[in-house]
Amino acid sequence: MLSRNAIKYIQSLKSKKFRKLYGAFIVEGEKSVEELLRGKLRVDSVYAVEDWMNAHRHLLNSSLKAETIGEDDLGRISDLKTPNKVLAVAGIPDKPPFQPEDYDSLILALDGIRDPGNMGTILRTADWFGIRKVVCSEDCVDVFNPKVVQASMGSFARVVVYETDLTTFLRSRPEDIPVYGALLSGESITGKKFPRPGILIIGNESQGISAALLPEITDPVFIPPVLSTGKDHAESLNASIANAIICYEISKQLFENKF
Amino acid sequence: MLSRNAIKYIQSLKSKKFRKLYGAFIVEGEKSVEELLRGKLRVDSVYAVEDWMNAHRHLLNSSLKAETIGEDDLGRISDLKTPNKVLAVAGIPDKPPFQPEDYDSLILALDGIRDPGNMGTILRTADWFGIRKVVCSEDCVDVFNPKVVQASMGSFARVVVYETDLTTFLRSRPEDIPVYGALLSGESITGKKFPRPGILIIGNESQGISAALLPEITDPVFIPPVLSTGKDHAESLNASIANAIICYEISKQLFENKF
Repeated sequence: MLSRNAIKYIQSLKSKKFRKLYGAFIVEGEKSVEELLRGKLRVDSVYAVEDWMNAHRHLLNSSLKAETIGEDDLGRISDLKTPNKVLAVAGIPDKPPFQPEDYDSLILALDGIRDPGNMGTILRTADWFGIRKVVCSEDCVDVFNPKVVQASMGSFARVVVYETDLTTFLRSRPEDIPVYGALLSGESITGKKFPRPGILIIGNESQGISAALLPEITDPVFIPPVLSTGKDHAESLNASIANAIICYEISKQLFENKF
Repeated sequence: MLSRNAIKYIQSLKSKKFRKLYGAFIVEGEKSVEELLRGKLRVDSVYAVEDWMNAHRHLLNSSLKAETIGEDDLGRISDLKTPNKVLAVAGIPDKPPFQPEDYDSLILALDGIRDPGNMGTILRTADWFGIRKVVCSEDCVDVFNPKVVQASMGSFARVVVYETDLTTFLRSRPEDIPVYGALLSGESITGKKFPRPGILIIGNESQGISAALLPEITDPVFIPPVLSTGKDHAESLNASIANAIICYEISKQLFENKF
């Protein structure tokens, strides 16, 4: 049975304040915990129901605390409506400093992404396309929020996420690095050439890209509503969808150019 | 103040059984309700807080019931954690029968999409790309589920969604209609030619495409993890993301071919 202190500690990790204080975060779900245990992050503790524990002992090394708990205890510490079989507490990794070489790959700049599902999905998509650096504005949902971790399906361990003022970040880039941003007035990505990587800004779910960042965009882009007839179509795409389509098109061209 | 019967009726519409029985569903959120009122669906009733009601009287015609309610009552009928200013009850539209001409456009076949957010996002993306027909397997989340309606951002009113056995549907298609499905062994969509529309199968979030449907796929496709180095990347993409990228690539080519 879990101690009251353990329950209190794990529950506190649902808030960003305590995640920062303790330098730790929660990972839930069989797939995500398995990836975590096979990966490089520090794992502090694993709480699991008996059948999971029996099947995964080979993944647990002696430096971590593993505790078999009942479903009632799991329900107490879980952030999920339907708790899964296992929950782990992992250490928030140190971030390598941003390097000039990072500009050799596409970088995402997330401007006020608030929905944890969108944030997790954006990290998962970035990971798929080999994007390793994501820079978030300070009003984005925290990347170690349990729902973000859940939706990222393990990608939280591979993509490095910075949190900073985006205007400052964009202005500090080398001069020849383009800044892409999706705008209704942008150039269609179906025709545009992307000869080099750059920074892609993804705007907030309902407000789009902040007015303050618009002057930093060197290459406004647009995903055309191809094949739709007239104006009778969705007004916009979900932020994580727009991100994915633009990342796909840019990555494809960069690969074709053997950059 | 809302009557107990009205509250009971609206709450019942959160379950598919009662939506079918009454032929009605809930729409929440300012943007979605506005689109609903400007669109073609039958609207039965609108419940809104005073400031919304005052600002939107011009959208309300005399055939619908409009009631100004307090935030406490809105909280009682809302499906949202943070209720918005307005909730409407609309009629589930009749579906036009599936026609041979429908095969002139890309059609989506959704195989066990369970997450309401994914389903809504898939409908919104379909709508953006001019896809008008979506066929769901019987184990998909219901398209008139409040969370699906919410995530579709108005697209529920423009995309026609059928629910049927997918094997039967796929086997009844004209012989020359290709069936696309995302598989790890598929051909990369970055190189593949899509000379004509067809049916695109999107599989379940964790299981992928059902084994029973695999023999129906004529053109297995694959979204390559371009630019990622080695095997160190996300195992897969979210279902709504994979759908969007494939829809984008097919739509782009169909448009370029002036099909």
